[in-house]
Amino acid sequence: MYGTIRFEQNPHCKTIPGPDESLGFGRYFTDHMFMMDYEEGQGWLDPRIIPYGPLSHDPAAMVFHYGQAVFEGLKAFRTNKEDIVLFRPDQNAKRLNRSCERLSMPSLDEDFVVQAIQSLVRVDANWVPRKEGSSLYIRPFVISTEAGLGVRASSRYSFIIIMSPVGAYYEEGLQPVNILVEGHFARAVQGGTGNAKVAGNYAASLNAQAIAKENNCAQVLWLDAVEKKYLEEVGSMNVFFKINGEIITPSLSGSILEGITRKSIIHLLKDWGLPVKEQKISIDDIVEAYKNGTLEEAFGTGTAAVVSPIGSLLWQGTPMVINQGHIGELVHRLYDTITGIQFGRIEDTHSWLVTC
Amino acid sequence: MYGTIRFEQNPHCKTIPGPDESLGFGRYFTDHMFMMDYEEGQGWLDPRIIPYGPLSHDPAAMVFHYGQAVFEGLKAFRTNKEDIVLFRPDQNAKRLNRSCERLSMPSLDEDFVVQAIQSLVRVDANWVPRKEGSSLYIRPFVISTEAGLGVRASSRYSFIIIMSPVGAYYEEGLQPVNILVEGHFARAVQGGTGNAKVAGNYAASLNAQAIAKENNCAQVLWLDAVEKKYLEEVGSMNVFFKINGEIITPSLSGSILEGITRKSIIHLLKDWGLPVKEQKISIDDIVEAYKNGTLEEAFGTGTAAVVSPIGSLLWQGTPMVINQGHIGELVHRLYDTITGIQFGRIEDTHSWLVTC
Repeated sequence: MYGTIRFEQNPHCKTIPGPDESLGFGRYFTDHMFMMDYEEGQGWLDPRIIPYGPLSHDPAAMVFHYGQAVFEGLKAFRTNKEDIVLFRPDQNAKRLNRSCERLSMPSLDEDFVVQAIQSLVRVDANWVPRKEGSSLYIRPFVISTEAGLGVRASSRYSFIIIMSPVGAYYEEGLQPVNILVEGHFARAVQGGTGNAKVAGNYAASLNAQAIAKENNCAQVLWLDAVEKKYLEEVGSMNVFFKINGEIITPSLSGSILEGITRKSIIHLLKDWGLPVKEQKISIDDIVEAYKNGTLEEAFGTGTAAVVSPIGSLLWQGTPMVINQGHIGELVHRLYDTITGIQFGRIEDTHSWLVTC
Repeated sequence: MYGTIRFEQNPHCKTIPGPDESLGFGRYFTDHMFMMDYEEGQGWLDPRIIPYGPLSHDPAAMVFHYGQAVFEGLKAFRTNKEDIVLFRPDQNAKRLNRSCERLSMPSLDEDFVVQAIQSLVRVDANWVPRKEGSSLYIRPFVISTEAGLGVRASSRYSFIIIMSPVGAYYEEGLQPVNILVEGHFARAVQGGTGNAKVAGNYAASLNAQAIAKENNCAQVLWLDAVEKKYLEEVGSMNVFFKINGEIITPSLSGSILEGITRKSIIHLLKDWGLPVKEQKISIDDIVEAYKNGTLEEAFGTGTAAVVSPIGSLLWQGTPMVINQGHIGELVHRLYDTITGIQFGRIEDTHSWLVTC
């Protein structure tokens, strides 16, 4: 598509963290990165895998001033057969393009994006952890690089992929978390950028996240910005509830990120013949279900944690404890199924895995 | 405050564009830049004026991923007495801190920010244009620089100031522009980042800006994101209307940037004994005033253009031509007064100017 990927071997490879080292999230980076540049009138140029190292930009580069920056996140897993696989990378490539479109950035060939990821993973294959639950986190991102201070779309961009070995999200096994229902700050609004994976959304969320921490909560549950009533996302995850045997998740309103884990979970639930609905859910609905004893489970979903059980929701100063603070059956089943597929223990009947 | 500003002379100074060269906006940069770094636990460190040159960042630097980036914009003018002056730089320093706070970034000493700007302007004083209407645009900005992919506030930042000689915004004198009233995209919402000068706001606005261009309009007039009814800003400027002799501008709702030119204009109008109000203004109010013939003037205000007369507003496919497409008297008076103060032709009775 954009020519052959050029390869430059890193002459100074790092020591790969051992199986007993705590990897955390996004702290170690592999020996190589993928990079490709865009020039208006010429398109994407010079795809290359090169030693991981610093980027050099003019201080007037537009990414520093006007925020044209989008990203994706996915993982490579080492299966029990020693294959290295990606989970639905085509979906990440699609969403990357949707994010680019929202910020007036050039699109990328989606097949090529997946090939670039595969090529980079193959080069740094030794970095894919062997420890159960660990994986190689992959971060494709696109940034504007033209030097200039006029407010307009940049004429130059870089598409870059970096990778980081990460530990299991819950090192001690699944743990329920407390969540603060956020009534003051807004994450996004219809017509804004909430349904795109753009850098600015995350910076805007940090204040609310700090308030959550002060309240002994791990994350916030965002309400819609217009009526401050309808549920949107939890932290940087989508959110699901099981109420009276039925599973519900907020419908994609235009301000909610379309999670790939969310989509996969809806698919699995339908496979299993369980009732699942995408719909508007108000915080009042949740309070009512809590009060009448039908709020059975709640959980966030995302690439980092897969599923994250919600132990309690703090709303207007009062915590609603869910399932007595225990992990629900459904969360367990979903977690075991998705990680089972990813690590090769469960057959991939949906062809979600792509081998590197 | 943060120690003495260290100075490193650029050994390869550039040729300064001559008086007949078209400067445009933000295309040429001066020989030096100011820079200072922040480390959690240590605060702001090593203030320095160094040769203008590329910044080097780890590809995992948070600014590329999570958008913690804020900026300011102000100008240095060469007066008819050959003084070099800044226009209300204390206001920019204040707003920079408000923007930092919104994105969980560390604050800066405001007096020091002004001193840093003054010092840098003095070093590159030859770059302040002599041509009437031209000036030296100053761009202070703060970016997050820690390398790491966890979504949280960065522990490291850089505060940087770069400068660019710019031509008069309207090289041929004031020109009325067509403006598209935007009904689909949203710029910001209460609880979001619209009242802060953050990078992500600008990336989010580019799509609407492109639609404006397709409709032969220079900018968009944003409506509020909740009711799609109340006026917010025009492009990256505040907006004013003169209706039946009274001047009105949208009140600061929490999603509108508090412009320094806006504030100065309100001040001048009050000085002149003219009726000026900050209030909610709906697009219906404007349509009604247009229809009954009381919509006398409309204009945007901002650092780049000072005032920008609006010749017509395109709303739901129909243009409302204002003042027969001519520049109103009030726009002229405001433009002449503010530029008069900036270039030393009119006495600065408000102490808005700060000498470098």
